[in-house]
Amino acid sequence: MARRFKFIVAYEGTHFHGWQRQEPPDQEPLRTVQGVLEQAIFDVTRQRVQSLGSSRTDSGVHARGLVVAFNCETELDPKRLAAAIGGRLPEDVQIRRACVVDDEFNPIGDATSKGYRYRIAFGGKSGVLRPLFDRRLVYWTRDDVNVERMNEAAQHLIGTHDFTSFTRKHHARESTVRTIFDCTVKPTREHRCQIEVVGDGFLHNMVRIIAGTLLDVGRERLTPEDVPRILQALDRDAAGPTLPPEGLCLMWVKYG
Amino acid sequence: MARRFKFIVAYEGTHFHGWQRQEPPDQEPLRTVQGVLEQAIFDVTRQRVQSLGSSRTDSGVHARGLVVAFNCETELDPKRLAAAIGGRLPEDVQIRRACVVDDEFNPIGDATSKGYRYRIAFGGKSGVLRPLFDRRLVYWTRDDVNVERMNEAAQHLIGTHDFTSFTRKHHARESTVRTIFDCTVKPTREHRCQIEVVGDGFLHNMVRIIAGTLLDVGRERLTPEDVPRILQALDRDAAGPTLPPEGLCLMWVKYG
Repeated sequence: MARRFKFIVAYEGTHFHGWQRQEPPDQEPLRTVQGVLEQAIFDVTRQRVQSLGSSRTDSGVHARGLVVAFNCETELDPKRLAAAIGGRLPEDVQIRRACVVDDEFNPIGDATSKGYRYRIAFGGKSGVLRPLFDRRLVYWTRDDVNVERMNEAAQHLIGTHDFTSFTRKHHARESTVRTIFDCTVKPTREHRCQIEVVGDGFLHNMVRIIAGTLLDVGRERLTPEDVPRILQALDRDAAGPTLPPEGLCLMWVKYG
Repeated sequence: MARRFKFIVAYEGTHFHGWQRQEPPDQEPLRTVQGVLEQAIFDVTRQRVQSLGSSRTDSGVHARGLVVAFNCETELDPKRLAAAIGGRLPEDVQIRRACVVDDEFNPIGDATSKGYRYRIAFGGKSGVLRPLFDRRLVYWTRDDVNVERMNEAAQHLIGTHDFTSFTRKHHARESTVRTIFDCTVKPTREHRCQIEVVGDGFLHNMVRIIAGTLLDVGRERLTPEDVPRILQALDRDAAGPTLPPEGLCLMWVKYG
């Protein structure tokens, strides 16, 4: 009898076209985390499972704790199953934990909060060198950045708001209201900072537009007080740029 | 009039065939750090310089502080020259410092000490996952490792010894005597350690064979007391394996 498995999956997104399986007609399927994972599950179990991921991360975005659920018939206990599948995965993706869950478990609908992190390195105009060894994990700007000012701006995002200004113009979501439980910008080391944001859910590109808007405050193109105005505008053009994917990482997803 | 410049260069070695320029006849030149750097110097100055590197790092080995010297006629001061050249370098190599040095400066012959680091992650057999986000910078072994025992073994390497056992069998060096000033193995975080070794110079593959020998002590294939015996054997076969390049990084080179 099939059981439902829950995997916590981590990956470096650099060489993936995001989480979600993409098989354009008359073309080679794109390299996606879901595609690679389902292939490894097939290699081990000979079953073509339909996995469901907690978050459709975009091309180039990283994850430390994306949650995946799928039904599968196997004698193996979850740890052995994960070890066998993990042995078939390429070096840029891995299964960090595995367990059996209730048949009804839905990694999207049941999520109560999610944590994202966006890493920024800055200061090229002041002679700081761009990131070298971790350049695939950090966004780099030549501008100088005031991290305290970014953190001040971030506080205005906390709460329940309509985040229309912080998503793509032609999105498909019914509701654009989301709750941000926490949003903090911390210096990590010299000329580095990271944005940590926790919410009940996120619209498409929302964290990357939040990061771009906070960065614009940090480099003094906007003021912290512009953030409430941008929220109220309900207009994507009012917010800052969508920062590129390499700085973004889905850290964890919590349930119930 | 030409001046002599000294650059401190850092690179991720993953996609380089080592430091030294390699132009096999009737083939495309291999991608080397020296080749890429001299091309960038040419792009800026229109001069084909002959640069000299402090260390011929092998394919895949990283550097944070390789020292390069070359003569060049330019009006630019060293910082501006380095910035202009740095702007032409690919994202896996950068110039960290630059100055003008004496015409006689020799980055190989004048070096008085060099520091290398070798990073190891371990424990796959105990269920530890392999490195993911920094996998290009760390060697991974499934074995369990006793780091204290490795450090104990490392102490036997300190001093002036004939390191014939710790270099390739068919090396071209006249003398195989080198002095190790310090050699330490430290835990960095859970299931991680790094070997730090400082010496007046290193034979080909010496740090990687030291790392392989210390690792064999850590995984109890050798004892710390085997190290003096291996030194005395003057036989490559007595030592442990040559570990792969990805864990190795040339940290710095000191002069005078």
